[in-house]
Amino acid sequence: MSKPPYFDRYANLAFEREDGVLVMRFHTDGGPVVFTGQTHEDLPPALEEMSLDRDNRALVITGTGDVFMDKIDGPSLGEIFKPAAWEKTRSEGAKVLQRLLELPMPVVGVANGPAIVHSEYLLLADVHIASVRATYGDFPHPEFGITGGDGVQVVWDEIAGTARAKWLLWTGESIDAQTALQWGVVNEVVPHDAALRRGVEVARTLAGKPALYRTLQKQTLNANLRRRIIQDVPYGMALEGLTAADLPYQDAT
Amino acid sequence: MSKPPYFDRYANLAFEREDGVLVMRFHTDGGPVVFTGQTHEDLPPALEEMSLDRDNRALVITGTGDVFMDKIDGPSLGEIFKPAAWEKTRSEGAKVLQRLLELPMPVVGVANGPAIVHSEYLLLADVHIASVRATYGDFPHPEFGITGGDGVQVVWDEIAGTARAKWLLWTGESIDAQTALQWGVVNEVVPHDAALRRGVEVARTLAGKPALYRTLQKQTLNANLRRRIIQDVPYGMALEGLTAADLPYQDAT
Amino acid sequence: MSKPPYFDRYANLAFEREDGVLVMRFHTDGGPVVFTGQTHEDLPPALEEMSLDRDNRALVITGTGDVFMDKIDGPSLGEIFKPAAWEKTRSEGAKVLQRLLELPMPVVGVANGPAIVHSEYLLLADVHIASVRATYGDFPHPEFGITGGDGVQVVWDEIAGTARAKWLLWTGESIDAQTALQWGVVNEVVPHDAALRRGVEVARTLAGKPALYRTLQKQTLNANLRRRIIQDVPYGMALEGLTAADLPYQDAT
Amino acid sequence: MSKPPYFDRYANLAFEREDGVLVMRFHTDGGPVVFTGQTHEDLPPALEEMSLDRDNRALVITGTGDVFMDKIDGPSLGEIFKPAAWEKTRSEGAKVLQRLLELPMPVVGVANGPAIVHSEYLLLADVHIASVRATYGDFPHPEFGITGGDGVQVVWDEIAGTARAKWLLWTGESIDAQTALQWGVVNEVVPHDAALRRGVEVARTLAGKPALYRTLQKQTLNANLRRRIIQDVPYGMALEGLTAADLPYQDAT
Amino acid sequence: MSKPPYFDRYANLAFEREDGVLVMRFHTDGGPVVFTGQTHEDLPPALEEMSLDRDNRALVITGTGDVFMDKIDGPSLGEIFKPAAWEKTRSEGAKVLQRLLELPMPVVGVANGPAIVHSEYLLLADVHIASVRATYGDFPHPEFGITGGDGVQVVWDEIAGTARAKWLLWTGESIDAQTALQWGVVNEVVPHDAALRRGVEVARTLAGKPALYRTLQKQTLNANLRRRIIQDVPYGMALEGLTAADLPYQDAT
Amino acid sequence: MSKPPYFDRYANLAFEREDGVLVMRFHTDGGPVVFTGQTHEDLPPALEEMSLDRDNRALVITGTGDVFMDKIDGPSLGEIFKPAAWEKTRSEGAKVLQRLLELPMPVVGVANGPAIVHSEYLLLADVHIASVRATYGDFPHPEFGITGGDGVQVVWDEIAGTARAKWLLWTGESIDAQTALQWGVVNEVVPHDAALRRGVEVARTLAGKPALYRTLQKQTLNANLRRRIIQDVPYGMALEGLTAADLPYQDAT
Repeated sequence: MSKPPYFDRYANLAFEREDGVLVMRFHTDGGPVVFTGQTHEDLPPALEEMSLDRDNRALVITGTGDVFMDKIDGPSLGEIFKPAAWEKTRSEGAKVLQRLLELPMPVVGVANGPAIVHSEYLLLADVHIASVRATYGDFPHPEFGITGGDGVQVVWDEIAGTARAKWLLWTGESIDAQTALQWGVVNEVVPHDAALRRGVEVARTLAGKPALYRTLQKQTLNANLRRRIIQDVPYGMALEGLTAADLPYQDAT
Repeated sequence: MSKPPYFDRYANLAFEREDGVLVMRFHTDGGPVVFTGQTHEDLPPALEEMSLDRDNRALVITGTGDVFMDKIDGPSLGEIFKPAAWEKTRSEGAKVLQRLLELPMPVVGVANGPAIVHSEYLLLADVHIASVRATYGDFPHPEFGITGGDGVQVVWDEIAGTARAKWLLWTGESIDAQTALQWGVVNEVVPHDAALRRGVEVARTLAGKPALYRTLQKQTLNANLRRRIIQDVPYGMALEGLTAADLPYQDAT
Repeated sequence: MSKPPYFDRYANLAFEREDGVLVMRFHTDGGPVVFTGQTHEDLPPALEEMSLDRDNRALVITGTGDVFMDKIDGPSLGEIFKPAAWEKTRSEGAKVLQRLLELPMPVVGVANGPAIVHSEYLLLADVHIASVRATYGDFPHPEFGITGGDGVQVVWDEIAGTARAKWLLWTGESIDAQTALQWGVVNEVVPHDAALRRGVEVARTLAGKPALYRTLQKQTLNANLRRRIIQDVPYGMALEGLTAADLPYQDAT
Repeated sequence: MSKPPYFDRYANLAFEREDGVLVMRFHTDGGPVVFTGQTHEDLPPALEEMSLDRDNRALVITGTGDVFMDKIDGPSLGEIFKPAAWEKTRSEGAKVLQRLLELPMPVVGVANGPAIVHSEYLLLADVHIASVRATYGDFPHPEFGITGGDGVQVVWDEIAGTARAKWLLWTGESIDAQTALQWGVVNEVVPHDAALRRGVEVARTLAGKPALYRTLQKQTLNANLRRRIIQDVPYGMALEGLTAADLPYQDAT
Repeated sequence: MSKPPYFDRYANLAFEREDGVLVMRFHTDGGPVVFTGQTHEDLPPALEEMSLDRDNRALVITGTGDVFMDKIDGPSLGEIFKPAAWEKTRSEGAKVLQRLLELPMPVVGVANGPAIVHSEYLLLADVHIASVRATYGDFPHPEFGITGGDGVQVVWDEIAGTARAKWLLWTGESIDAQTALQWGVVNEVVPHDAALRRGVEVARTLAGKPALYRTLQKQTLNANLRRRIIQDVPYGMALEGLTAADLPYQDAT
Repeated sequence: MSKPPYFDRYANLAFEREDGVLVMRFHTDGGPVVFTGQTHEDLPPALEEMSLDRDNRALVITGTGDVFMDKIDGPSLGEIFKPAAWEKTRSEGAKVLQRLLELPMPVVGVANGPAIVHSEYLLLADVHIASVRATYGDFPHPEFGITGGDGVQVVWDEIAGTARAKWLLWTGESIDAQTALQWGVVNEVVPHDAALRRGVEVARTLAGKPALYRTLQKQTLNANLRRRIIQDVPYGMALEGLTAADLPYQDAT
């Protein structure tokens, strides 16, 4: 089985596959990822390609080094205060989450460290393993002065409960792996060095199920989350875009 | 029964009441209304007051002279391209439609002429009477270059069907009373001079029902429309606000 | 194939079956039905039995003589102003409509004359044939001074459009077969004597489809109506029960 | 009050009633139940009869001996790989859960031991008491190679949160009573011998409420769960049926 | 900035404001509040005024002395067994919760003691601080023999999970602050004397965000709760009204 | 502006573009299309490419010669009776309709003749023009003995009303252009030779609107249809797959 072309197509996505378990690792030049507009643009086609490649039987999503994701390159996102530019981000954002949820295979999220940017990528996973060093929160939205409507609000609401989600996302606080376990956000907390290995191990087990079982069990277990993502993300990102568009006028408010 | 204070409180709303039938007439200085930001701001408190006044047993909504509503004073709406300013319009707009639908009494809409601004006020009515001279459409949104998400998209969709709604609101066309009757948008088309009289006559009959019947029949028959208005108008107006916020940058798109 | 016991179990329901087409005819002593509390109570178990009898491949619902249903025996419904008594009606009413929609076979409604009581039984059908003498409306609810939330509000809304439904159910008017055809409520209007024969003919064609096709096509085509019936009828009948409970106090309102 | 006929009608359901508290106990020949196609077929009519018997003021559901339910007789379910046969299971399954939720009385679930088959029967209860020996999971679906869409996916999602539900149902793991308590799935964990007694005690208190209160409080507190069960179980069981239908071809996938 | 007129308009609502943080304190003559029909009637207009006052940047809701709310004056609610009278309560109740959720600013709930009446006012807050002496439950509904459909069923369901909500509201039990913290209902438990101070501190931080951010983040994080409140409270209160209307007949049930 | 590569990539899709109006024409070897599994597989990537190409300002969808679509090559769809094979069709089908609705531009459907295969492609358009020779229906599903759950059930329900949709899809009848106009399915019926020209003319007008207006007006006007497509097509196609899987066993039913 030769290496599919998409393995090398995307700057911030590294792929490895063994026994049908695809590992997708976020990175920047081989180190912890700095999330950019390019990363955002690349995710929808990458997910589409992963989805159509029937050699992928299960997926592991993780970060590089000791970080899942904790840096974002604001300027790379473009002039998000212009609604026509924002629409690109909004459209991509909605596609990313929907395609993640509609992958025809189980996904294991491995939080190999802080996940304070796009934690929803992990929370949408079917099984979620955390290193003891993982932490969770949402820093970019408050930092940029824009609301967090890209899906982060949906996953925390559905998974941690409404009151905990509102506290986390209003205050900008973050929580550690143990708290995430107690909140039901994480399924297992493991020693730092064991996180990826454990994630692959779980994925391997799931990859052993029949193809149609994997595809339809995925749909069965994510039906409600999919409904909410599809309904609430386009709305949340419209509100987010309004706060972005307001930035140039903000002294006046 | 003395005249309630709200009868004289709002510049563009004239009120008369006989036998429990309240007639609310849009006007500007006694002539056809030019819809302004003030009209928009006044509607939510006016509807709240009408709602709490138990002497109102049925409501007729109409325009002045030969026009329901066909003029809008754009500048009076304020700097709608600034999202913080738009939020005022958005919040008021959502309240207007919800409060209209939640009035504890039947509403008869009387189209006494062109209704090409805020036709949704008529389409939300429980019974809808049209003068032969009535016409329906949506000119301000395309004119201003902003999308029509203030509820006009919901009522036409639910009442005329999706395909007719999309045609009407994409093309900027308008339809006459007879077409509206055939589409199921209007319940009766009557001679021009008879429209208000016929509307009041219907309202008088409905006003004769017991109080709780009027309130709960209203809720029963509007349950689906209310669900859609409450769900889709905040979203529609967020999109509309994004198109407004984009206007200053539009050469760039 | 011997006659199933339920063919003779219910006072107001006559059954005949030929070639898998079951005809259920409402009647009272062989003449036009006077709908009673007993009829209401009998429908849920009758529908359950019809549903489980795999010899039924299609169903025709009709009335007796020149009337579908135009009389209701108010007192037979019991002390509906007492909420604990109303709960029986409410629970039965919700079951009737849901079971009608969930029958594992197509249903042809035949309006053999006025259908001004429980017209929703016909409007829920998969194909709807009307005699030229059919008329449609809702007289019992306004007559009893109680709101119409038993499903009549849902079917007219979904089938005839919101504006026509509100007009019909607020005003107590009725419409003839030709109008119902134009509104999309009825699929064919036929000479009076031909109505049942035509209904059976259509049912016979549909009965010829494979069993699973009939069951799943039914579910496919009624998914939205089922969602609305299940959601809105329990609410509508709660409101209806409140108006009933208010009757003894009504001078005070 | 004589014993109702349904007390003796169903092979796997034992009934006892004292002071309006009906105890329904799953069993096979007086010992722990082996769930069969017959059990599944019997539940909808049994629940209908229990629902209509106004002498039932509260219900306790439990198992026999030291087991709630941990065995299932696969072959007794019939040729579930044939979609027309599956439709029987699918239709019954949807009825069971809906009728459980729509019983006009509170239900106390008593987990008297392992509940690794149809745990949703317990999770749908209004109050849930567990023996310290109770365990929860879903073994039959993965065992049979079919997805778990019969409602087990809905109750775990709503009650334990999406992330815990997905982990439990993907991995085939099970959890003990103490974990279930911490997850908010169980309300009280009691010594093994006290479980049924405690369940009956709670049921007795609830049985003391007025009839209409019991019926409508039930509906009030289960409105969301009912909506999800009614919407998602027919879909989940369709997907489950597809995996069943795929079994004969599975070498090819 | 002079004191707004509404600060002194409502008998049971005391207002203070510093640096844009409005504190609304329930009280009766300066002591712990006894909730009355007047309190209920006052809340919708009070919330509307608070909403329109742009000097309010964040809101704290709390009680007086050592009690959030634990007393209710039943007779002051009027003849709630008459549905036409109940409709007033029902309409106000629906408005209160919706307006709370639609305030254009973050709300901090401070449970300064028992919250066993209208705990939903606290659970709808964006951040929820509890004194160690806080307790939570619902005593008035069971006490009055009416179901709890005024929103208490929705917030406990969404925030604490379905199984815990059903247990709490069926049994009439109450839980302490520490349990509420573990259930994810409360975000912080603090020493009794520190509760209000901590609540104001959190509110002050949130008040520092830009105006549009506060408004739209509020909407983003409460989208699902709003949907459920708007959908389920009118229904829940209809059922509640039926149990109230049944009280005069209750010997007969 | 050079020709984009996707113009030549797909066997059954011909593309032309003038002034930002893209015309996508179904064909087989330049004549009327015979729909195949390849066509189905090609549509999702084609729509994705069309969506990302910002030179497309409006889209016209039409057929070749005197036929929109009336032939389907059954065997080319593969072994659809095997659920694992069906899943490919099901997944593609859901993508096609969702991507059609989410194109960031208005779509004009031109029915240049019979549209009795995949009529939903036309009914999802924003404006729908028909040649006088157009006809509409659904022949492949009944022909193949499988239910029609690929979206055809949703569009006819939302656009023509529930009763007309059920009649059309149960009976296998078809309707002509004039009837479609009267049902509100088609917006204009034009002489046969003028259909495409008129469609392009309308598209050209819509293409003249600003980019963001086109994108967001599209979303505004299709919000409800999108919700239904996304919710009901995966379910409908699961049921359809069950009927397909049942075909090999059908003598037994």
